Amino acid sequence: MEKAATYDFIAEPFRCDLNGELMYSTLGNYMLNAADYHSAERGFGWKALKAENKAWVLSRLAIEMQNMPQPYEHFHITTWMEKTLRAFTYRHWAITGENNRLCGYATSVWAMIDLTTRQPADIFKIGDGKIRDYADENRGVPIDRASHVKIDKENLELLRETDIAYSDIDINNHVNSIKYIEHVMNVCPEISRRSKQIRRLEVAYATESHMTDRLRFYGKEEGERFCCVVMRVADGVEQEAVRCNISYKL
Amino acid sequence: MEKAATYDFIAEPFRCDLNGELMYSTLGNYMLNAADYHSAERGFGWKALKAENKAWVLSRLAIEMQNMPQPYEHFHITTWMEKTLRAFTYRHWAITGENNRLCGYATSVWAMIDLTTRQPADIFKIGDGKIRDYADENRGVPIDRASHVKIDKENLELLRETDIAYSDIDINNHVNSIKYIEHVMNVCPEISRRSKQIRRLEVAYATESHMTDRLRFYGKEEGERFCCVVMRVADGVEQEAVRCNISYKL
Repeated sequence: MEKAATYDFIAEPFRCDLNGELMYSTLGNYMLNAADYHSAERGFGWKALKAENKAWVLSRLAIEMQNMPQPYEHFHITTWMEKTLRAFTYRHWAITGENNRLCGYATSVWAMIDLTTRQPADIFKIGDGKIRDYADENRGVPIDRASHVKIDKENLELLRETDIAYSDIDINNHVNSIKYIEHVMNVCPEISRRSKQIRRLEVAYATESHMTDRLRFYGKEEGERFCCVVMRVADGVEQEAVRCNISYKL
Repeated sequence: MEKAATYDFIAEPFRCDLNGELMYSTLGNYMLNAADYHSAERGFGWKALKAENKAWVLSRLAIEMQNMPQPYEHFHITTWMEKTLRAFTYRHWAITGENNRLCGYATSVWAMIDLTTRQPADIFKIGDGKIRDYADENRGVPIDRASHVKIDKENLELLRETDIAYSDIDINNHVNSIKYIEHVMNVCPEISRRSKQIRRLEVAYATESHMTDRLRFYGKEEGERFCCVVMRVADGVEQEAVRCNISYKL
């Protein structure tokens, strides 16, 4: 089986935003679907891991788009792993539109957790470590790697506080990785101004959030970017859940 | 061209809820996509209407599910119009899973609006009224029609109030029909209790809501159902946007 795989999608108009462009969160969902199809076909998808009481969790993600798919555009997501270590897997995506128009790239780091302890698990223990056969160490991605997203927490402003709701939680019983992106986009000032294009989105996931927690979004705009720290509040204690940078310029 | 059409989908695990079932809102999105594909292939989809400064708007919707698609299940949505009048179109859906397992049915009423005046437009004026050729007057749907959703507004409780955010708005520049369902599910008490299955969802759309409005969710549980009225607040004035009934029993 090939190391990389390509999946086809359509930018459904009702999943496009008021500017007529596919939303980053919708694109993120498609990317996660492509990653799961790719893993499932190679024996280490969500279902195979679930049977061993494990799950993939997204640790870091960066998406850089030159062109967003337009309404009804048939687009393609190619995904592959560059490298797999015991604790982390490095997965990339290339997104192309009709007539091979380059839309953008994305890159990520994944960990595996034990579903009972919620602690990191050894990736090589799944399926006799066959996952290593699918790593393509010569195939990187032409954008900056997904960083830890360093944010100076001075002068951040509390922009929104909200209860976590049913629709935020996914089958892994925690707030869905992509739902955080949807929430952060909702508090990003540039999204309302609509004067500039979002060029790069970078997210670092620190802690899981659960149904009974609350989320606080602290953010500030600095030049051509918006920084946001999402804190989960459980039993009155604040803990960092997600850090996110949205750049309007590369 | 056939009057009905069938489209294939997959219940992606990360679009499933904490119970491992496809969310009603995700299913609703797929149904709307199927409706739009069906319309587009017959010359009256979103794009064709947009060129004439018109758009379809959902007026009433009912979904009745016996079995929700399970994670990774390949499922099929068949859609057709039973009847088309000048002001309204009656569209149905049948949802089946693998091995022809019946999942459920849905039914709806659509109006067409002029995008400038936001007022109702004459459906027969689109494409010389060819839409009538695709109505299948002998093919109904074996569930109760989508009603106007009558709700006794006495004793409703204010359950949530929220600003409308970027992710609520779709390409038609109003709150997306399915996003209301996501919000109503989030305030439905049974969703948190998780003791009963949602069997029927019924929604009536009264007024469009826009980016600068707020939404207030008033609801109450009455026996085996949850009733919710969504009010849009614009310039301090409350106006009914949506009425919704969620039944736990048929």
